[in-house]
Amino acid sequence: MVKDRLNKDIQFILELDKMKSILRQTSLIDGSRNENDAEHSWHIAVMAMVLSEYANKEIDICKAIKMLLVHDIIEIYAGDTFCYDTEANKSKKERELEAADRIFGILDQDKGRKIRELWEEFEEMKTDEAIFAAAMDRMQPLFSNYYSGGGTWKKYNVKREQVYKRMEPIKYASKQLWEFTVSMIEDAIEKGYISD
Amino acid sequence: MVKDRLNKDIQFILELDKMKSILRQTSLIDGSRNENDAEHSWHIAVMAMVLSEYANKEIDICKAIKMLLVHDIIEIYAGDTFCYDTEANKSKKERELEAADRIFGILDQDKGRKIRELWEEFEEMKTDEAIFAAAMDRMQPLFSNYYSGGGTWKKYNVKREQVYKRMEPIKYASKQLWEFTVSMIEDAIEKGYISD
Repeated sequence: MVKDRLNKDIQFILELDKMKSILRQTSLIDGSRNENDAEHSWHIAVMAMVLSEYANKEIDICKAIKMLLVHDIIEIYAGDTFCYDTEANKSKKERELEAADRIFGILDQDKGRKIRELWEEFEEMKTDEAIFAAAMDRMQPLFSNYYSGGGTWKKYNVKREQVYKRMEPIKYASKQLWEFTVSMIEDAIEKGYISD
Repeated sequence: MVKDRLNKDIQFILELDKMKSILRQTSLIDGSRNENDAEHSWHIAVMAMVLSEYANKEIDICKAIKMLLVHDIIEIYAGDTFCYDTEANKSKKERELEAADRIFGILDQDKGRKIRELWEEFEEMKTDEAIFAAAMDRMQPLFSNYYSGGGTWKKYNVKREQVYKRMEPIKYASKQLWEFTVSMIEDAIEKGYISD
């Protein structure tokens, strides 16, 4: 029984390797190539460690980190959906639910459910931990776009109001991080990275 | 003051992007390319979540995850030292201490110290959390090498006793994971991936 459970765990772990080949739209800060889901997930998990002291509410940082580590693994089957692509976002929910059944279904039910619940909590964005985690998920591409000289903002002619809407979770997560974000967005508009 | 502290945090977070360009010797399981430190760190952090139930001792999983997330960031300046390269390992400690001063020094002292302590605890491998974390760090390349058809074992003609020595933390971390590891190593020897 233990052996059977462990074999499923290993299958799941092997499947996770595919996260390293799911490319996102955002590039590395040096602009050399697009980043992938595994790199992105690592970066925002460390960001949560570093920035948790700025959270408006007291949060369970451990839970936020776990959420960030697994929030994108459904993309192994559902693919990355670009946040500013309206068309692709229509089918996103359905594709992701199917992918969730498949990826979490590799594990024994109790274990798959536990990880799935973290993903669902992240998606629903209602708890303080999920809001803080979402803020990390939004801030990291903000850095990539800004420091790579406009990135996907410039490439897809993204507008001010689209960026502000996308970054909204940061407003609810942290006063200081929101102030920082606003000044960065305004500066990006001035530089012509984001269209006014 | 807060702004100054936050600016240092952001500088640190931007510097972490370089982890995505530090290549390791091991390849992805599909053999398509070498993996990098960011991907590796993410993978072993999730592995810790999935496999913690097999730990021999009760561990603070949150601490183990945090350790795994930051255990390699000194490599941004020190580079990745291949575990089976005896020559490079002679200068490893010195290079890594210098790198640690530099990377953790970006942050305010209290914050830099906190993350540095996680790295030091991992390196010393004395606490139950550090031993479990080390086990994750060893197991992941085991999977990469085995499932990519021999990987660095084959490439560098690595011997049975070298692999057993390298995998030792798994023995102290978990009875079940050690049994699994031994059967995998023995099978890899039989397949000619590891030289007998």
